[in-house]
Amino acid sequence: MEKQQNIKQKLPDKFSNFSEWYQQLILRSGLADYSSVSGCIVYRPLAYAIWEKIMQEVDKRFKQLGIKNCYFPLFIPEKLFEKEAEHIAGFKPEVAWVTHAGDTKLAERLAVRPTSEAIMYASYSKWIRSWRDLPLKLNQWNNVVRWEFKHPVPFLRGREFLWNEGHNAYATEKEAMEDLWKILNIYKDVCENILALYGIVGKKTELEKFAGAVSSYAIEFLLPNGKAAQGPDAHFDGENFAKAYDICFLDQQQQKRYVQQITYAISTRMIGVMVAIHSDNHGLVLPPKVAPTKIVIIPIFDKQTKQNVLDYAKQVKSELVKLLSNSDSDAIIIDDREQYTPGYKFNEYELKGVPVRIEIGMRDIEQESVTVFRRDTLERFTIKLSQLSKIKELLDEIQKNLFEKAKQFLLSNVVTVNNIDELKQAIANKKMAKANFCCTKECEQNIAEQLEAITPRVIALDEKPNENDKCIFCGKKAQAVVYFARSY
Amino acid sequence: MEKQQNIKQKLPDKFSNFSEWYQQLILRSGLADYSSVSGCIVYRPLAYAIWEKIMQEVDKRFKQLGIKNCYFPLFIPEKLFEKEAEHIAGFKPEVAWVTHAGDTKLAERLAVRPTSEAIMYASYSKWIRSWRDLPLKLNQWNNVVRWEFKHPVPFLRGREFLWNEGHNAYATEKEAMEDLWKILNIYKDVCENILALYGIVGKKTELEKFAGAVSSYAIEFLLPNGKAAQGPDAHFDGENFAKAYDICFLDQQQQKRYVQQITYAISTRMIGVMVAIHSDNHGLVLPPKVAPTKIVIIPIFDKQTKQNVLDYAKQVKSELVKLLSNSDSDAIIIDDREQYTPGYKFNEYELKGVPVRIEIGMRDIEQESVTVFRRDTLERFTIKLSQLSKIKELLDEIQKNLFEKAKQFLLSNVVTVNNIDELKQAIANKKMAKANFCCTKECEQNIAEQLEAITPRVIALDEKPNENDKCIFCGKKAQAVVYFARSY
Repeated sequence: MEKQQNIKQKLPDKFSNFSEWYQQLILRSGLADYSSVSGCIVYRPLAYAIWEKIMQEVDKRFKQLGIKNCYFPLFIPEKLFEKEAEHIAGFKPEVAWVTHAGDTKLAERLAVRPTSEAIMYASYSKWIRSWRDLPLKLNQWNNVVRWEFKHPVPFLRGREFLWNEGHNAYATEKEAMEDLWKILNIYKDVCENILALYGIVGKKTELEKFAGAVSSYAIEFLLPNGKAAQGPDAHFDGENFAKAYDICFLDQQQQKRYVQQITYAISTRMIGVMVAIHSDNHGLVLPPKVAPTKIVIIPIFDKQTKQNVLDYAKQVKSELVKLLSNSDSDAIIIDDREQYTPGYKFNEYELKGVPVRIEIGMRDIEQESVTVFRRDTLERFTIKLSQLSKIKELLDEIQKNLFEKAKQFLLSNVVTVNNIDELKQAIANKKMAKANFCCTKECEQNIAEQLEAITPRVIALDEKPNENDKCIFCGKKAQAVVYFARSY
Repeated sequence: MEKQQNIKQKLPDKFSNFSEWYQQLILRSGLADYSSVSGCIVYRPLAYAIWEKIMQEVDKRFKQLGIKNCYFPLFIPEKLFEKEAEHIAGFKPEVAWVTHAGDTKLAERLAVRPTSEAIMYASYSKWIRSWRDLPLKLNQWNNVVRWEFKHPVPFLRGREFLWNEGHNAYATEKEAMEDLWKILNIYKDVCENILALYGIVGKKTELEKFAGAVSSYAIEFLLPNGKAAQGPDAHFDGENFAKAYDICFLDQQQQKRYVQQITYAISTRMIGVMVAIHSDNHGLVLPPKVAPTKIVIIPIFDKQTKQNVLDYAKQVKSELVKLLSNSDSDAIIIDDREQYTPGYKFNEYELKGVPVRIEIGMRDIEQESVTVFRRDTLERFTIKLSQLSKIKELLDEIQKNLFEKAKQFLLSNVVTVNNIDELKQAIANKKMAKANFCCTKECEQNIAEQLEAITPRVIALDEKPNENDKCIFCGKKAQAVVYFARSY
């Protein structure tokens, strides 16, 4: 019964020992496992089902915007990759190189894609000829490899991850930017309303923007250990890649022009962000909209009561299936395994983050009720069989409660700082710090050298410095309000 | 107007010049394109949408069997890969090897997965301890690389393709084989009822089976050029991998035993098989169940009639959307682009294989009708607006017609042969040949040496030789009826 021990054993404390708590939680909940390749994890069915949900939700919104899915090769020839100078400089230190096929040495090394600009834009250059071919909005759901040399953390930092990479080309900057904001709003919508997460949407500073972009935008999240994690992002590339890969078109006046491009991505990192923010010392806490299993019914019986209890459980399940009109067979399950005790099952589903547990014993049957356990608040209560529809409301309430808690957590952990000491103090206290900043590249480089792990995360979009505000670092005129934090 | 020329230009003839016809069709219909990496293609939105449909249909059937999706690393360390001797011998000549990350030489080479037995079973060995952990049914939808040195053919033979790879472990061979047949039937169902294809389900001979398997089963298709293409397959591995990767469990009697395993796959090759079998000299012919756009409405108007015709077209579309209750926004489209002529559009959608075209001009409006063009038979006819529901029946009829034609094509191209000369003659006539075979490894090796490209495709399951029948190659007692063909 080694496994039963494992289920009952307590997790480390989330707040005093976040890192150990997170790693044990990932492994013991069955979300992921380490693999035989250092820095690469196995996405077990629970994690992959969450990723499938994220893909579905994003994908259906993308399709409404006219974005189409496609698939480009995994490999990028080295020379092709090198065409955009900033891009290759940003990615080259982390590229995994294929040098041999079978026993044959390849004539040119192939990069395992860390991102697909190079390979896609070689095709865009062939496909786009006229204004009639624009806009071109293509997306891939694929795997990418970035050989990080820092310590890997499951989902948050690894050498291979899954993501979408969208690559759109337009005739004008105006159209490009309009779609960029629609896409960022799709990501925000999925983060808030599906993953129940609240982040700060902002613009990246010069040193933090995507390698090759004109400007980058991202949603930043704060984890309980005080580190920021960059979530989905979108980049305006202007003509940078169009010039490097020769993507031009004849406009309606027969003038040859370069296309304007944007790119955008959401990755499996969001699974890690979600787990870190919602979960507790009992295990995972999954928002109902993302949980593959939303309700688990646990019948409690002995030999005499078995048939009665199982019949009642099936009746409850079939009513819930109707109420939730959910066609997914895993959404509502009955766990009638007899080789495990009810107590073991309670612990197991708490660890796995199932939002609602329904316990059914003889007393529940006698009282025509069920016992309900709510994973997010750990509350246990009874509801009448005739009021089973309350379970649907309960799922909505859990979803909403998790989002409100996440929002409150972030808002209460942002501190406005007026000088470098206050900034350091805030970061030491696991906060995100908000400060006036001049936004010059020189000043940003100085910060990187002096403050090491503390980096500007995003420039606030809804807040500007006052006329006389100064940069807290160099004392020059402040250009923006910027969020700072340590980051993954 | 370079592009208009391209659309109107005729394709090479399918039957006299299959290879050129196929390659031009793939490119000009927009299914796929060549890429900057030799042997790797770009799956453009049309091909990828077909693949998404195949994935959806297979995946929902898998889920009913309790198969769960997951994701394992792309890379396999060389030593781990080498543990099962036959497996590595089969795959090593085609492996793409990663040797460097950034500027760092890796301590051990990493194989880019050609298949995931090695990396998955290292985890299975950790996860499976007791009979309670069985069956374990995991599947991946991913990309794999096999560095073929033969001439690549889009979809049919390439260096990277997309597939599912399912890997199940069981306590007993009986359970394993029961699921293997259920899974083969899922593939058969999707091939027949979604892709409208008819193939031969059979068992692989010793030399043709999967590297490492005890026995392999596959669905074989015949292409119009007389070459066979192996479709989805399923393999019984017995304890071969369990022994190599140490996957054992304690059974209910506390005895340590090895698990019994099966693996199974369907790949993007099926897009190529489908295209080759259904399409014609006008372009693609897509079965309605797989076509992303099932109906295209083409309004034909001038300045005066524009508003009238477009209103009528919208009305027809909205009635069809209701009739087909299809929520996908691409399923029924109106092409009202004014920069292209109706004739151009007719050619374009014939090339792209849209099953039904509806043409609407002023005459149709006056007669309260629409003009319908059916892609599979190229018939054009008129139906009354009041009988629009016939379009739904028409889609079903097209689906059925394509399947019947495909079945007829295969059945009429299988020839029973009684000696080697007849076999050679049949193959020269682009047929599949059926012959009595001893099924010994020695005889199969002799065939491989003597007949070169002609190989045993599958052993018939529903047909046995008579008592006195002899192997047509060696004259010994026949053990099975086997299908032979040249193959991709």
